[in-house]
Amino acid sequence: MMHLDIPTIGDVQRAAVRIRERIHRTPVLTCRTFDELTGACLFFKCENFQKVGAFKFRGACNAIMSLSEDEARLGVVTLSSGNHAAAVSLAARLQGIPAYIAMPETAPESKKRAVEGYGGKITYCANIKALDETALKIQKATKAHFVHPFDDPRVIAGQGTATLELLEDIPGLDIIIAPVSGGGLLSGTCIAAAGVRPGTEFFGAEPSIADDACRSFQAGRLITDNVGSTIADGLRATLSERTLSILKSHVRDIITVTEEEIVRATKIMWQRMKIVVEPSGAVPLAAIIAQPNSFAGKRVGVIVSGGNVDVDHLPWH
Amino acid sequence: MMHLDIPTIGDVQRAAVRIRERIHRTPVLTCRTFDELTGACLFFKCENFQKVGAFKFRGACNAIMSLSEDEARLGVVTLSSGNHAAAVSLAARLQGIPAYIAMPETAPESKKRAVEGYGGKITYCANIKALDETALKIQKATKAHFVHPFDDPRVIAGQGTATLELLEDIPGLDIIIAPVSGGGLLSGTCIAAAGVRPGTEFFGAEPSIADDACRSFQAGRLITDNVGSTIADGLRATLSERTLSILKSHVRDIITVTEEEIVRATKIMWQRMKIVVEPSGAVPLAAIIAQPNSFAGKRVGVIVSGGNVDVDHLPWH
Repeated sequence: MMHLDIPTIGDVQRAAVRIRERIHRTPVLTCRTFDELTGACLFFKCENFQKVGAFKFRGACNAIMSLSEDEARLGVVTLSSGNHAAAVSLAARLQGIPAYIAMPETAPESKKRAVEGYGGKITYCANIKALDETALKIQKATKAHFVHPFDDPRVIAGQGTATLELLEDIPGLDIIIAPVSGGGLLSGTCIAAAGVRPGTEFFGAEPSIADDACRSFQAGRLITDNVGSTIADGLRATLSERTLSILKSHVRDIITVTEEEIVRATKIMWQRMKIVVEPSGAVPLAAIIAQPNSFAGKRVGVIVSGGNVDVDHLPWH
Repeated sequence: MMHLDIPTIGDVQRAAVRIRERIHRTPVLTCRTFDELTGACLFFKCENFQKVGAFKFRGACNAIMSLSEDEARLGVVTLSSGNHAAAVSLAARLQGIPAYIAMPETAPESKKRAVEGYGGKITYCANIKALDETALKIQKATKAHFVHPFDDPRVIAGQGTATLELLEDIPGLDIIIAPVSGGGLLSGTCIAAAGVRPGTEFFGAEPSIADDACRSFQAGRLITDNVGSTIADGLRATLSERTLSILKSHVRDIITVTEEEIVRATKIMWQRMKIVVEPSGAVPLAAIIAQPNSFAGKRVGVIVSGGNVDVDHLPWH
């Protein structure tokens, strides 16, 4: 029998207190155009305005601030090609400890520069497959503490704090929808909202060419093969036993959307809401537009996960 | 001797009450990166989040809602290739009266569609020079009331309401800076802030290849020649006697910036603030970055004028 540490609503609430002074309390925006388009009442929790430009800063802060002085002393290590790397680097710097980051050489230049800017010490790997091994080597050499991008109860609890804030600002939500990659954000979202507002419905949203979470959810067991190269580059990770188990307990459905639907949703968020979101952050809106019957007439919280795009290389060019 | 109707702080305050239920109260954002970059403390009044995506909706609403029933009955007419056309169209529709818009055929497709979407009745002109004549013809034919884009005391008073809100949210500002085109926004800004916070310093910001306002300001008389085709397409109009007279009474300086400085400021606002601004809306930040000594150590209000860009045709491509 497998034992998995699953965070509770208490863990999310303690995380919220722990990280409160470090994070931005991000705004909740509405957009009449999208309400008319979908027939729902949408409330966008804008984590693109979070520090480092993504919700990832919440989980990284909670994990790092949860460490004992002894655990933290030698720093933290992680592996990531994207927002989690920047989040761990900044969270570690603010805690005054080193951060070691295993990054693929193929990561976007802007992400590499962000990590360096926050003082993260990067070790480059030839490819994504080498990340695990590289992180393990760094950990052995430095004795730093490992902070997984999503398969960590403290990270999951931290991500859930966005939803606690959302429900404080907008108490009467029927549904909350978030993007799914490794499942840390959606897991934290479910635990937070189920704890303070039982009866909330949860949906995940995922690119159809990286639909491993949808297939795992439907099969009831972990499927990690065949993740395509989606434009939603933040959504390429696969679930863990822990996050799948949480999603199975809470989630109504995981909706998949095409690349075209993602690009369209990203563009209309830029055009109509005047906010910069990354394609991953527009996947939930794309799902609502693709499957309006699940949302029409409902008050829906939409987690906008991040806003890190290289403006010189926009997805529609 | 010339007589010019100049709006007062009372006009701006009455405008604020008049249009309150029609407009968005836009947020004031801060960005630590830009504070570090400039040495100032910057407060961005985000009119890119205003209805129709620009401050222009304030002035259009105030002008149209100020009309008597008799004046309004036959509708309003204006000339514009951009945000003012959309603003008048929506403001008229909400008031239940027709809007006639003289637009150059060369206006961006997205602007034409916006005006049509708001129910504005467009008459196309072969070029910008024909706009005045076309608007006059429409006015004679329809007896509609003319609402000038900036040379109108009710429009100027309406634009000033953004600054009243800014000073309610952030009371202790030393300086306010706004972009200058026809001067309606900067005029309203000066009248509003000088009225409620005497001693505030004012700066205008303008593209150096369309520096007519700067040259008029320095010469003390209207110069309207030679307006180049700047990327900040909202800033191609020239001052009027009325707006020049207001700016002469209040403004410390008009700072000009290069096209490269405008593009750079636009991009970093997208990248770091995660908000979509049009190049015109980034001109004040470009000016602060170009001339930091005027702003360092000060609390500076920055009017972000609008966020209408065609995401398929971004300025840096």
